[in-house]
Amino acid sequence: MLIGNAVVGQSGGPTAAINATLAGVIRGALERPDAIKTLYGMRNGIEGLLREDLVDLNSIFGADESKITTLEHTPAAALGSCRKKLPTVADNGEFYENLINIFKKYDIRYFFYIGGNDSMDTVAKLSEYSKSCGYELRVMGVPKTIDNDLVVTDHTPGFGSAAKFIATVMQEIIRDCAVYTVPAVTIVEIMGRDAGWLTAASAIGQLYGKDAPDYVYLPEVNFDNEKFLADVKKAFERHPNVVIAVSEGIRYADGTYVGASAQSGAVDIFGHAYLAGTAKSLERLVKEKFGCKVRSVELNLPQRCGAHIASKTDIDESVMVGRAAVNVAAEGVTCQMMTYKRNEGDEYSVTVEHYDVSKIANQVKLVPREFINAEENGVTDECCKYIQPLTVGESYPEYKNGMPEFLII
Amino acid sequence: MLIGNAVVGQSGGPTAAINATLAGVIRGALERPDAIKTLYGMRNGIEGLLREDLVDLNSIFGADESKITTLEHTPAAALGSCRKKLPTVADNGEFYENLINIFKKYDIRYFFYIGGNDSMDTVAKLSEYSKSCGYELRVMGVPKTIDNDLVVTDHTPGFGSAAKFIATVMQEIIRDCAVYTVPAVTIVEIMGRDAGWLTAASAIGQLYGKDAPDYVYLPEVNFDNEKFLADVKKAFERHPNVVIAVSEGIRYADGTYVGASAQSGAVDIFGHAYLAGTAKSLERLVKEKFGCKVRSVELNLPQRCGAHIASKTDIDESVMVGRAAVNVAAEGVTCQMMTYKRNEGDEYSVTVEHYDVSKIANQVKLVPREFINAEENGVTDECCKYIQPLTVGESYPEYKNGMPEFLII
Repeated sequence: MLIGNAVVGQSGGPTAAINATLAGVIRGALERPDAIKTLYGMRNGIEGLLREDLVDLNSIFGADESKITTLEHTPAAALGSCRKKLPTVADNGEFYENLINIFKKYDIRYFFYIGGNDSMDTVAKLSEYSKSCGYELRVMGVPKTIDNDLVVTDHTPGFGSAAKFIATVMQEIIRDCAVYTVPAVTIVEIMGRDAGWLTAASAIGQLYGKDAPDYVYLPEVNFDNEKFLADVKKAFERHPNVVIAVSEGIRYADGTYVGASAQSGAVDIFGHAYLAGTAKSLERLVKEKFGCKVRSVELNLPQRCGAHIASKTDIDESVMVGRAAVNVAAEGVTCQMMTYKRNEGDEYSVTVEHYDVSKIANQVKLVPREFINAEENGVTDECCKYIQPLTVGESYPEYKNGMPEFLII
Repeated sequence: MLIGNAVVGQSGGPTAAINATLAGVIRGALERPDAIKTLYGMRNGIEGLLREDLVDLNSIFGADESKITTLEHTPAAALGSCRKKLPTVADNGEFYENLINIFKKYDIRYFFYIGGNDSMDTVAKLSEYSKSCGYELRVMGVPKTIDNDLVVTDHTPGFGSAAKFIATVMQEIIRDCAVYTVPAVTIVEIMGRDAGWLTAASAIGQLYGKDAPDYVYLPEVNFDNEKFLADVKKAFERHPNVVIAVSEGIRYADGTYVGASAQSGAVDIFGHAYLAGTAKSLERLVKEKFGCKVRSVELNLPQRCGAHIASKTDIDESVMVGRAAVNVAAEGVTCQMMTYKRNEGDEYSVTVEHYDVSKIANQVKLVPREFINAEENGVTDECCKYIQPLTVGESYPEYKNGMPEFLII
């Protein structure tokens, strides 16, 4: 049994579940005193580790179960985050020597990094170096991203909660848009620069005869203005209130982002192209073509930090996967990313596994073509059936004085 | 006792509570068979009444308590809405004769209209005409607006739920913005063209040492770019993550809307001024001045239809006021708008009353100067103490398959 201290960090964009995973790592460490003496938290990920900005998580959470529970319902990243791509060993060996010296100084033998693609690259590089330099360090990656774009794992912690926010708010927006009889188009812009998983989540109502957008446009397929306007025309033949979901990342065949709003030709005082945003650009396009009422709604930050309507499935799994990372590391596993395997059968369930992180980092899992409809303006029921179970259950934070209780470390 | 049928309609913009008020009217009507035989719902407000597009609410809800409960948690306007300003009797007497003929045809003796300022104007005009023409009709207005800008009543149904969404999401956004160490400004745009009540709601965290925006700018005070940029500079001296709440309706001293983005100078291909939105315009202003990361977040539609995080206080009161409207009308009251009176004492409670609707219509209640701080970039604790009780309690919809259950009539 490798006995020593451990350090955990959070990296990349905030989610509603990344603190649940941190809580899982904390729970796991407290349950494994045979392997881990003290669990340190690095502030702002690897950057905090480099400046030795560490907090003793045992002393903060050790005796306080309610604090851990509050952390599980707190959005964003309680330890802070960073966006740092590590150099290669060849480019900057000194960088890694510094890290190893810090590990030695604090007797750190376990390294847990919660994050997305870039974070897994960090884990892979650190794994490689620690092996090469002979310092025994267990390095584990725990996935986190609302984008759901990591390979190997069935899905990523954080995705289910963002998907639930989007699916729920889409139900509300469609109710809102249905009250007037005058023709109107509402365009809802959803996060996802390259992968359309979150935008696809807006459509899961179609599985149950509930409200769903008239059209869903993903970055996986080329966007075409004329085809889009023809779609809107068709929708008007069905009803006056047209609701459309678009990914922020949709692009034209030539690769330019729709959000660059080239077609609006808007320029600022310096003559720079005016970046209107994807929905805003389409709003102008529809207004010019149909002259009807058009509204664009950017779900923006609330969709990634919506702890107040987090998915219970997602939060519970996020705690589980963090805890499991500690246990397998204690048992000798290293250089791996934790993964979910969806079990066979009609009843949804997952098994937590792990996989060589070097084979996961720097790859992107897009929405497969078979999940997109023939007209390329919607998603299939199969796609919805994949997403929907991840949104089941409500993990509500506690409220005091009308506002949610969040934990600030 | 005046015995006959009743008709209820919804008008103006959607809210998370207007269906709770409709449910209250339905409950009230079912409880008063001594006065009301059948309660009809007019689709799309007065417009539906004119085309005799009526639904029998007794037969839809009479025997189904669970349907009424689902309605109470459904956002927007289940009967549909309209934005119609009624003509004066002098301008178009025939319009009113038509209405009276429809009332006679359906033996309608009770008229309940749930809406905001324009809707109360409708109620006032109809009250006046019915009196003058000698057709006995009890005409009652039930307030509804997220803007909280109706006079006489302490607050309006729908405001508390929108305020709770805004206060909750603001807690989440500030957590989200706190994860990085790089200087960044996040500008959150909140609804309220003339009255800043909703924007003020973003600050109630300040009462309890919780997160609150660094600054709050309301339409009640003139906006000044230089003063604003000086405020941002001061905030950067305190911390790198600056969060600002602005009302969509803030204007410069000359009356032009900040959202008209005159200062961005953006024009489209036709040379028209590019309406960027208030936060978007300020985003460009801050970017040009500080060159830092700046983000604008428009809360947009989700803030007015956020049934998934509605205020229990608001929903319960909204049902109560709808039910009370039926009861007082049955007892002989007419030509009135229902109002809330906040009772004295530390413990929050309200009494439902009513007031001459002709003295309420076409007036606007703004945030009083004493609720705004001396620097005019925030609100006072007194302001927060007025708003906070209206956000207390969570009125959650039922969820099936991960999505909220809403009622569609």
